[in-house]
Amino acid sequence: MKRKQNKGQPIYPPHEWEIVEEQFLPVYNLRNETIFTLGNGYLGLRGNFEEGDAGLAGTSVEGTYINGFYETVELKYPEIAYGYPETSQTMLNVTNGKVIKLYLEDEEFQMFSGELLTYQRRLDLRNGVLHRDLVWRSPAGREVKVAITRLVSFTNKHVAAIAYEVTPLNFSGKVRLFSALDGDVQNLQAGTDPRVGSHLTGRALEVLAQNVNDEGGALLQQTKKTGFYLACAMRNQVEGPLTQVQTERLPLKVGVSYEFAGEAGQAIRLYKYLAYVTAKDGASDLCPKAESLAWQAGKAGFTRLQQDQQDYLAAFWAQADIEIKGDPLVQQGLRFNAFHLLQAVGKDGVTNIGAKGLTGEGYEGHYFWDTEIYMIPFFINSNPAISKALLTYRYHTLDQARKRALAIGLTRGALYPWRTIGGDECSAFFPAGTAQYHINADIAYAIQKYVEFTGDREFLFTYGAEILFETARLWLEIGAFNPRKDNRFCINVVTGPDEYTALVDNNFYTNLMAREHLKYAVQTAAWMEAEASAEYQNLCAKIGLDAEEIALWRRVAEHMYLPYDPGLKIYAQDDTFLDKPVWDLATTPPEKFPLLLHYHPLLIYRAQVCKQPDVLLALFLLSAQFTTAEKKRNYDYYERITTHDSSLSPSIFSIVASEIGYHDKAYDYFTSTVRLDLDDYNGNTKDGLHMACMAGSWLCVVYGFAGMRAANGVLSFAPYLPEAWQEYRFNVAYQGRIIHVVVNKEGTSYQLREGESLVIFHHQEKRVLTTKCE
Amino acid sequence: MKRKQNKGQPIYPPHEWEIVEEQFLPVYNLRNETIFTLGNGYLGLRGNFEEGDAGLAGTSVEGTYINGFYETVELKYPEIAYGYPETSQTMLNVTNGKVIKLYLEDEEFQMFSGELLTYQRRLDLRNGVLHRDLVWRSPAGREVKVAITRLVSFTNKHVAAIAYEVTPLNFSGKVRLFSALDGDVQNLQAGTDPRVGSHLTGRALEVLAQNVNDEGGALLQQTKKTGFYLACAMRNQVEGPLTQVQTERLPLKVGVSYEFAGEAGQAIRLYKYLAYVTAKDGASDLCPKAESLAWQAGKAGFTRLQQDQQDYLAAFWAQADIEIKGDPLVQQGLRFNAFHLLQAVGKDGVTNIGAKGLTGEGYEGHYFWDTEIYMIPFFINSNPAISKALLTYRYHTLDQARKRALAIGLTRGALYPWRTIGGDECSAFFPAGTAQYHINADIAYAIQKYVEFTGDREFLFTYGAEILFETARLWLEIGAFNPRKDNRFCINVVTGPDEYTALVDNNFYTNLMAREHLKYAVQTAAWMEAEASAEYQNLCAKIGLDAEEIALWRRVAEHMYLPYDPGLKIYAQDDTFLDKPVWDLATTPPEKFPLLLHYHPLLIYRAQVCKQPDVLLALFLLSAQFTTAEKKRNYDYYERITTHDSSLSPSIFSIVASEIGYHDKAYDYFTSTVRLDLDDYNGNTKDGLHMACMAGSWLCVVYGFAGMRAANGVLSFAPYLPEAWQEYRFNVAYQGRIIHVVVNKEGTSYQLREGESLVIFHHQEKRVLTTKCE
Repeated sequence: MKRKQNKGQPIYPPHEWEIVEEQFLPVYNLRNETIFTLGNGYLGLRGNFEEGDAGLAGTSVEGTYINGFYETVELKYPEIAYGYPETSQTMLNVTNGKVIKLYLEDEEFQMFSGELLTYQRRLDLRNGVLHRDLVWRSPAGREVKVAITRLVSFTNKHVAAIAYEVTPLNFSGKVRLFSALDGDVQNLQAGTDPRVGSHLTGRALEVLAQNVNDEGGALLQQTKKTGFYLACAMRNQVEGPLTQVQTERLPLKVGVSYEFAGEAGQAIRLYKYLAYVTAKDGASDLCPKAESLAWQAGKAGFTRLQQDQQDYLAAFWAQADIEIKGDPLVQQGLRFNAFHLLQAVGKDGVTNIGAKGLTGEGYEGHYFWDTEIYMIPFFINSNPAISKALLTYRYHTLDQARKRALAIGLTRGALYPWRTIGGDECSAFFPAGTAQYHINADIAYAIQKYVEFTGDREFLFTYGAEILFETARLWLEIGAFNPRKDNRFCINVVTGPDEYTALVDNNFYTNLMAREHLKYAVQTAAWMEAEASAEYQNLCAKIGLDAEEIALWRRVAEHMYLPYDPGLKIYAQDDTFLDKPVWDLATTPPEKFPLLLHYHPLLIYRAQVCKQPDVLLALFLLSAQFTTAEKKRNYDYYERITTHDSSLSPSIFSIVASEIGYHDKAYDYFTSTVRLDLDDYNGNTKDGLHMACMAGSWLCVVYGFAGMRAANGVLSFAPYLPEAWQEYRFNVAYQGRIIHVVVNKEGTSYQLREGESLVIFHHQEKRVLTTKCE
Repeated sequence: MKRKQNKGQPIYPPHEWEIVEEQFLPVYNLRNETIFTLGNGYLGLRGNFEEGDAGLAGTSVEGTYINGFYETVELKYPEIAYGYPETSQTMLNVTNGKVIKLYLEDEEFQMFSGELLTYQRRLDLRNGVLHRDLVWRSPAGREVKVAITRLVSFTNKHVAAIAYEVTPLNFSGKVRLFSALDGDVQNLQAGTDPRVGSHLTGRALEVLAQNVNDEGGALLQQTKKTGFYLACAMRNQVEGPLTQVQTERLPLKVGVSYEFAGEAGQAIRLYKYLAYVTAKDGASDLCPKAESLAWQAGKAGFTRLQQDQQDYLAAFWAQADIEIKGDPLVQQGLRFNAFHLLQAVGKDGVTNIGAKGLTGEGYEGHYFWDTEIYMIPFFINSNPAISKALLTYRYHTLDQARKRALAIGLTRGALYPWRTIGGDECSAFFPAGTAQYHINADIAYAIQKYVEFTGDREFLFTYGAEILFETARLWLEIGAFNPRKDNRFCINVVTGPDEYTALVDNNFYTNLMAREHLKYAVQTAAWMEAEASAEYQNLCAKIGLDAEEIALWRRVAEHMYLPYDPGLKIYAQDDTFLDKPVWDLATTPPEKFPLLLHYHPLLIYRAQVCKQPDVLLALFLLSAQFTTAEKKRNYDYYERITTHDSSLSPSIFSIVASEIGYHDKAYDYFTSTVRLDLDDYNGNTKDGLHMACMAGSWLCVVYGFAGMRAANGVLSFAPYLPEAWQEYRFNVAYQGRIIHVVVNKEGTSYQLREGESLVIFHHQEKRVLTTKCE
């Protein structure tokens, strides 16, 4: 491994269902805020302390995010050219509803003053709650026990709640709790790391109305440019010897102060119920709606919310969990990753998954191809409805993709944005943005896989086909049959997944995936014509599609050029890649990684050096089209020139290594993936979690160690047991079945837990699964 | 010709030594302000009216520029990467000293009110003055004759002067002239055309001190970021029945009002002498210096300034003029171009020539390779001292070029900026900026040509060698011997002169020019070692150069890879260029040119389409290395895919067409060049003159029609007479000789007017020139 990674002792002890912090160290605060984020795919609360942060500047990012809720930012180019996007979108840091401040007499509780006598923070993955328990001695010597539980509801996406319990230990006297909604929030500013921060300056949200009373309050806000509305409400319930209640109203903030006659040993409690509601086109009833949701949550009570959370997660884990025997660190990592994927994913068909989920402001909350290539396979298996919602999001933004194709000068078809929230292209550097046309093929691939695993042709015909057809047109717009290459179909001036090379001709990944895209579009047209003839005619009429065009797609697919080097017997990443000098990774100092932060792009582009797999990824995704020997040759070649400067890289290397029998390497790459954030290998967990990498760790087990593949209606496995483990087991969802797979030293068992009997392949050997068999 | 050009009737009538405007049309005001710019290479005054502009917004750009006087502008990238320049530089629009307002009683003279009874504006190319003569009838019916003469002194670069004469025709009464220095000036804002405007916002100059009295005044100013100082002074002298003088002092402006008892038929005169002085590191005495210069100019008087101007220009024209018989429009164009080149060029060794000279704010006043490849050949011939000063500018910025090489991650050597004023890279889009490494070879080429034409080895050893050696190192930093290409030396991921293709491998122009650069560096080292041994040892010690490195340069040059297509028998613009589909220029609508304003770069990069010559330019610059048949094949191929969207394009096509005997085409391209600005072919003369194109028109005649070449110590010609002409004649400066060349229907004569006898070649036939021969 060439990259610099902090792969030493685990940061968090190996609890199988928990992430526990035993000591509060401000230097790790930013990282822990990310790790302890709670979310439900709609609302995300970073693990900031309720009382705020009194540490040094730059040691905390207060963050509350709503998926799909963004402000536009004007993109100002020092040198502009035709067709550049004029605006970007930034996921907003919205009103902070977490605020609960504690005062003992005149002393304000802060982790940074006084003394922490005991401390523990605990993320409970099974129950979906975050605990903080501590005993604090104030500078004046007052000791108090604080126990806080926080949740963001999976069953009501608008709702979050905090149970805050204070017990005076060695004194009796005034105890005051101040609960607020703070609208004085901003996003992080962009710095020198291109992956973090936005160009949004100042406060994006203006307060339109506010409301506060003894039981809670609300803020109605609006974004300045997009004009989106946000209502945020809180409902406070207290238990204890209340002496006084006071409301506070500031221009950007509302709060309520609860004063108690505290007695030593007697617990005082505040239950805070939060509701966030947004609207894009009108504010009517938004505040009452938020208030009603908060009051309803309060009425149901915290215990009820906890129970609902537990029930929801029980169902999730029943299908999504991978159980490992023999490696609690890996077990913890896999569960942490699965939990955060569930917390990050938009489930409503109009939102998606940001590269960092809802955990931080890295990549401005943008959605990338990560969703289709890394995350959707996880959700296809754990919750097909979610993967359908993610693809539906693409359908809802198809019109924008059509407009984008025209905007850059194409005559028809659709080009999806390289990065976006609302559906418009937000990439401001086209050589590593718009030029990554493969986004179209990635989306087509995810549709194909979704249909393959679920059999959901209704989705295919209602939504998928239109996406497939319009995006397929791109290839004919930007490519051409090349008389100088035996009339093969060539696609010039593109950038593949490996961003350490840009603007090349015939990128292998792009051409191969485009070929598959075109073949599947042709296949889909045939299916649809046969099975849903009327809908097919309507669609053809709507988008001006005819048999001639489909025939052309077939011809293009048949003649697609794939760059191949007969000497090395490998696929060339692009037409000129193999002619470049090889970057000397052996002599590159460790502190110069990732290269992108230490070398001008021209130096990187000039050499054979990969940020992440490009050819190998294609060989994995379309595995059935290549022999193991081919994969091995390509793996051997590309591994030695790959830096893994992208967190999307090691998982793919692990999977291909598994497939070609490099089991040690497969495990090594897997360990670079499964605890990347938990152990902060790259040192940037503070900016948000690496969602695609997290999904990649799941792929490493299921597609890698267990060798699962699904192609042409056949489900197959080629499992092996990593040396370090005694056993691993997981469920597979396939066309209405649930198959429980157990791999251990005795071999592999496949148990059909739901659905009709099925033929699968185990290492090329046919097996019939019935409900009787075990 | 594929490009949209307004090649109809000439805009200005064909006076051989004058540009005359007979009618004032506000719609053409911006263009005329550019055309009627006066400058001396240090100071440039756009042809704005003294009284200001009262027309519609956007019909005037008030401009006063000082070469090398700039403000820095922060470059904010929506997506940043390592090694991007952090600041750019913008040539500043400085204090307007042109202001003279005229009042007849209470009526203010403006071209936009009342009635112009007669009007003429006249740029006198022989005498270097601008005249405006008019008779104006005020709205109240007062008629007045106004005669204004303006000059910017070639003999004292700090000085400009205006003679303003007013004669009441049909009335007697109060006549008032107000003369001011106006510091309330700003630069143009960037719009959607990437070639125009800067990101500098607000006023860049702050007023530190001001001074005004009855005879004139001064402003001392400083730029906010660079901290440069500017002092601007005016001295006013009046003639006429003066009744009152009043000074005016505003925060950013000083002025003096002169009131006269005007009488019908009696002229009133104001002579205004301006001086601009700048300093980068201190303001002491700057104001007194400017005032002293203005007062001295006033003491000498306007007539004297005019005489000095005339003398200076007489000497210039004696050497620089090309005389044409039979085509007054072309004659006018060539003189207009030569005059503006002289007006634009910095002559002090620390400034250069902006792409638009000092005539407008296009390209922010930046210097490009245009200087070395287009303008220096003109100055080598007309005034070698100026070409030496231009190369000395590069020497003075060599340290910045060294730093830039390190900044992008190279280990040694120097990389000159693609665009700059002060020497730092100001290009904000590296694929069409920093990637144009050929700038290094272009500078080397200009040094070589300068030495070839002047024999000035002292310059070569004192300045040239260090530039040549440090810049030669670049090629070894970015290129490598390629075992996959027969161990030829390959240079990957560069952009050649043709910006319609970017980031390619083995750009023919770059590789060929790099080869020549390395060969010349090796040659220079040998010369210097032999002729200036001590200096050579010092230089080697200073830059750590040894014989081994020089041997490596030779080996690289010998093995340089040049992409060639054996099927087409042409040089390929780069490794993949010929594999791309050909852009269909025939069906591209005329309004879609220039392509860069109507298509996304990805669409343009993807196709075989050229903005300007790339291979052909190399074949011209290193003409001796290629056969005519080769040139013809390459010309035939590349011509049909070239849009000439760059104004640098047609001249090169014309020269190569001349060389291969395509005389009609040569003349046609020449006519696209010689009056490009005068007839505003591209519709953007308003943004400034196209200096490289202007120099290109000179190249078309001398290198094209007359076929002049100088290589390996041999001067040769291959002249022909364009059909439209009866004769053309010009002087050539070559190694201390002046050769007068006359080409007419009788043939060609070469007259040695100065210097020792010389052998030249005329169409490969040897001729001996002696002072006796004619």
